[in-house]
Amino acid sequence: MYFVSDNNAGAHPAVLAALAAANNGHARSYGADPVTERAEALFKRHFGEHAETVFAVTGTAANVIALAAMLRPYDTALCADSAHVFTDECGAPERFIGARLTAVPTADGRLTPAQVVAFATSPYRPHGQRPRAVTVAQPTELGTLYSAAELRALAETAHAYGLLLHVDGARLANAAAALGTGLGELAEGADVVSFGGTKNGALAAEAVVFLDPGLAADRALLQKQSMQLLAKARFTAAQFVALLDGDLWRTNAANANATAVRLAGIVSALPGVKLAHPVQTNAVFAHLPEPALAALEGYGSRWGSGTLVRFMTAFDTTDVDVDRFAAILHAAFTR
Amino acid sequence: MYFVSDNNAGAHPAVLAALAAANNGHARSYGADPVTERAEALFKRHFGEHAETVFAVTGTAANVIALAAMLRPYDTALCADSAHVFTDECGAPERFIGARLTAVPTADGRLTPAQVVAFATSPYRPHGQRPRAVTVAQPTELGTLYSAAELRALAETAHAYGLLLHVDGARLANAAAALGTGLGELAEGADVVSFGGTKNGALAAEAVVFLDPGLAADRALLQKQSMQLLAKARFTAAQFVALLDGDLWRTNAANANATAVRLAGIVSALPGVKLAHPVQTNAVFAHLPEPALAALEGYGSRWGSGTLVRFMTAFDTTDVDVDRFAAILHAAFTR
Amino acid sequence: MYFVSDNNAGAHPAVLAALAAANNGHARSYGADPVTERAEALFKRHFGEHAETVFAVTGTAANVIALAAMLRPYDTALCADSAHVFTDECGAPERFIGARLTAVPTADGRLTPAQVVAFATSPYRPHGQRPRAVTVAQPTELGTLYSAAELRALAETAHAYGLLLHVDGARLANAAAALGTGLGELAEGADVVSFGGTKNGALAAEAVVFLDPGLAADRALLQKQSMQLLAKARFTAAQFVALLDGDLWRTNAANANATAVRLAGIVSALPGVKLAHPVQTNAVFAHLPEPALAALEGYGSRWGSGTLVRFMTAFDTTDVDVDRFAAILHAAFTR
Amino acid sequence: MYFVSDNNAGAHPAVLAALAAANNGHARSYGADPVTERAEALFKRHFGEHAETVFAVTGTAANVIALAAMLRPYDTALCADSAHVFTDECGAPERFIGARLTAVPTADGRLTPAQVVAFATSPYRPHGQRPRAVTVAQPTELGTLYSAAELRALAETAHAYGLLLHVDGARLANAAAALGTGLGELAEGADVVSFGGTKNGALAAEAVVFLDPGLAADRALLQKQSMQLLAKARFTAAQFVALLDGDLWRTNAANANATAVRLAGIVSALPGVKLAHPVQTNAVFAHLPEPALAALEGYGSRWGSGTLVRFMTAFDTTDVDVDRFAAILHAAFTR
Repeated sequence: MYFVSDNNAGAHPAVLAALAAANNGHARSYGADPVTERAEALFKRHFGEHAETVFAVTGTAANVIALAAMLRPYDTALCADSAHVFTDECGAPERFIGARLTAVPTADGRLTPAQVVAFATSPYRPHGQRPRAVTVAQPTELGTLYSAAELRALAETAHAYGLLLHVDGARLANAAAALGTGLGELAEGADVVSFGGTKNGALAAEAVVFLDPGLAADRALLQKQSMQLLAKARFTAAQFVALLDGDLWRTNAANANATAVRLAGIVSALPGVKLAHPVQTNAVFAHLPEPALAALEGYGSRWGSGTLVRFMTAFDTTDVDVDRFAAILHAAFTR
Repeated sequence: MYFVSDNNAGAHPAVLAALAAANNGHARSYGADPVTERAEALFKRHFGEHAETVFAVTGTAANVIALAAMLRPYDTALCADSAHVFTDECGAPERFIGARLTAVPTADGRLTPAQVVAFATSPYRPHGQRPRAVTVAQPTELGTLYSAAELRALAETAHAYGLLLHVDGARLANAAAALGTGLGELAEGADVVSFGGTKNGALAAEAVVFLDPGLAADRALLQKQSMQLLAKARFTAAQFVALLDGDLWRTNAANANATAVRLAGIVSALPGVKLAHPVQTNAVFAHLPEPALAALEGYGSRWGSGTLVRFMTAFDTTDVDVDRFAAILHAAFTR
Repeated sequence: MYFVSDNNAGAHPAVLAALAAANNGHARSYGADPVTERAEALFKRHFGEHAETVFAVTGTAANVIALAAMLRPYDTALCADSAHVFTDECGAPERFIGARLTAVPTADGRLTPAQVVAFATSPYRPHGQRPRAVTVAQPTELGTLYSAAELRALAETAHAYGLLLHVDGARLANAAAALGTGLGELAEGADVVSFGGTKNGALAAEAVVFLDPGLAADRALLQKQSMQLLAKARFTAAQFVALLDGDLWRTNAANANATAVRLAGIVSALPGVKLAHPVQTNAVFAHLPEPALAALEGYGSRWGSGTLVRFMTAFDTTDVDVDRFAAILHAAFTR
Repeated sequence: MYFVSDNNAGAHPAVLAALAAANNGHARSYGADPVTERAEALFKRHFGEHAETVFAVTGTAANVIALAAMLRPYDTALCADSAHVFTDECGAPERFIGARLTAVPTADGRLTPAQVVAFATSPYRPHGQRPRAVTVAQPTELGTLYSAAELRALAETAHAYGLLLHVDGARLANAAAALGTGLGELAEGADVVSFGGTKNGALAAEAVVFLDPGLAADRALLQKQSMQLLAKARFTAAQFVALLDGDLWRTNAANANATAVRLAGIVSALPGVKLAHPVQTNAVFAHLPEPALAALEGYGSRWGSGTLVRFMTAFDTTDVDVDRFAAILHAAFTR
């Protein structure tokens, strides 16, 4: 089970300690407490003083709140057809916003400026919806990365054509660790960012970071109406304090990335196996031969209906975990 | 701040201990873990073997999932105009379901069978929406209770007229503690129950308990699409295990109820003060004279635009807390 | 059946003639035709050069488009609890917009500035929705009128508190005929007006007139997405040309109003009958004694569950029709 | 302009005559009139005694009502990526239903049983939506046809996998005329059919024909809430009486089909031109060389961003019209 998903990991001990520390008597509910205030300030430190943040408990909710701030129901947002927001959110964006996601195929999960231009200039309104936003994941659902320059170029193209840019950063920490940047550097040019704490070591903590002040105006209403305003809000905020006040976010992400590289080396050396995508963060995608597929059922997750399998490392994956799994892999290939 | 809301309380230590215990390495995400399984079994123990449960993190979400399972968008559900689902959920039901809540005035937050009959027999479809469900809170938003017999009578009336019954049990534990019943006894006749853990000592744990198997069928899709399916689901489930495996739910609720009675005695003895509603659970509603109102700003919450104030006790309120507050109250009335 | 509804009337012969005239070979579909252009220009003539109009085929749709341009899903609009938009549109606003209508009781169907102020200043966001608009009907669903000055005062109050004003003018022609004004004079201060052609002699022709240019921006997308963009749009437009190019709209409305006054005189003279509302346009509301109620079943429409009955006159009601009905009324009261 | 769209045509004189005939004094509104009753009976004659029908005024609305009866918001319906419901309805299905359309590429606008099976067996709920329905157009948006046997096979496959089948019959008359069948024969196996009168000679008349009685139950509420319940409903019904009581529907459709074949012969003989799809109903798709494209701007409609152009014939297109257009075509190719 270890490599099925980075969501299979538990919480980092420091996160649990932060919960216990936040549990110090009564505090104002619904976010009017000092811990929430501190977490909001930390997001300003990382993303800039203009950043306004609301918290959520699922990545789906963070994406929905972000897109709901950008789109009217007759608008549409461009995304990769492998994007989590398109494949894994059970239509929450469609139901909550009413708008359509326009999904296009990509080689590696990454949208190109040319795709943005084609989307922006598609004709025939009001019969078709109005292109209004682009949503990219950094890293992508396939574990691949935009360079900071590529992301800025996408933002510039989007803005030049009157589109907004949303970055789904469910694993933004992994991207920043891999690229050696701060979190804010990867959000330059974006209008709204979803930032994920859960895969980074939290229990359940996601954030919607509004970088465009106009889009931020209704954030409290959006958070409440999307059923994400927790009564005891300090407990979500405390998780972010644990991750973002020091370097824990980067340490956790870097560990996941490094163990993925270690795992990728092992997987790619298996007979007849080729990695499907470059391993740039904490995901390893490989096509496995049929017998190995069956033997490894439950150790990774099948991707689509073919022979592609994804292995994920997590903030707490150790080299020993990887090496133990290497033995399982070898056994699956030699029986 | 102590008596503004039972949501101002933190989490019970046993709940935090349960989180730590659940944090034992990797586990399947999205609810396919043993802790979630155990929590689901506990709900069956309390509500019956036919009970099917999904978890959520806000009471708003629990109510929305419950109502979404009952209503089509052209349906309407009857509620008290003081109901939380009508006044405090920022239109989440309307947005997510598309349906209307039909809110009617009540003396004490409780709907009557006659109101249910009037609602069920209202004419003039398809111009008006179709009456389809009744949603009552037990206890009500005003802290008042239906007896188990009254609740059964409401259910019988509703069912006799082809309506479903939803019970918003954000504080169902308080009701059961006050009435000396089990949780399941208060759900007899209901089709779906929202059960609240947060006000009972959890960090953030709510449940939707489907007692009608037909309504339960799509619960996983509803939970996911309403952005409530947590990746690390075990951490919500663990909170319910802490509360529901033994008697902690009842101990916590009984404490809140008892300290509310103590507080009510003090408040009602203040000069010129009369309780607005009988104190049956953990809420004390009283009209205060204007000078006291100002002096007590921040100690309770103003209810509406008049002189009504609500004081709430919580699972962790002590007699000492109440007695200290008594001194503050007396000072507010004598300066 | 004659006095059940002004919707029971057929179409004015001039409207049918206009349809036939518009049926002159091929024309661009979806509104890019000269008849639509001419109808749009007529709305500018009546409502001002800044007026932008889209057409619809039901009054429900016109109201929904108007409100959808004004409200975000976490907003709410104030209306009378007798308003058509609240009682007779099967929740189309809730489903299509996601937002709530806040319905308040009135004496005679008319909202007061004080109600607008109370609505605008209601507290407690984001738990409650954001007050954003006021929707009034002119005439009201009860046939009563705001004077032009009263309507302007409502608009000023609304705007002073940051709210938008929608006027549901399903029978605006009747109001203008009764008040001796032009149509545009009754829209001064409104941000969006629904204008009804159907009750005025059209087959099926409603308009949404945007007086605030910012709200007009997305009107084509709203019209299309609300399923109101007709392929052969010229046939809706032609109906408005027939009504609005000359004085047919006023002649038709004035006739309905005048025959209602005649009918009101007869009804109010019946033994024991008192009009429930002043007869200011084409509706006569009266409480009837039980035996008469039964005898008159099908001649008017029962209003609510009591003894109130509504009789409507139409653009084609004649004095002879009224006098014949007088005989039926008298018979119902004397048997 | 003649060949841009079959919606550019006006109404058949018999349709206008039917409107005039229906305009005989007062009649019950909202569909409780004898003309509506007669039209409903005609749909039973064509589609079977079990067929229940509601009327609408746009094809978008008919499709939305049909799909809304089939889908819950977490469901998804399969369609061709060229389908009108996907490309030309401004997201009305997404907004009104909340559900997603799953669009897949096709060679000629037609879905295959294999695509239905792949859709039905796609894994990974509740993260992905639940496959629930298939929507096909007969004829397709590309003018191509399913044979009656192919359509039955699709229905059988869909039903075998627990899916419902919707047929978008905006031009079903053209299909029946081309295949030499009755209308009902083409609906065998379908659960709900959208039937288009507008392109067949009506002003604005569409129908939703429910063949599955369970799906029909809420049709009146769906019609009203989707803003399609006309006050003077007889005028929509009258158009269907004109088309469906005798053979006018077939005559009109056959004429459109025949003139399309005539036009196709001319187009395909142009130098360097090849038809993009077989001409089976009233659409001619051809790739044109660039100079001709420019010269013919406004005579047909560009399809996508390439060199594909669609020419449509209508119920009133004459051989003379086609031959005159032939001259224009030849000129465009020889200058």
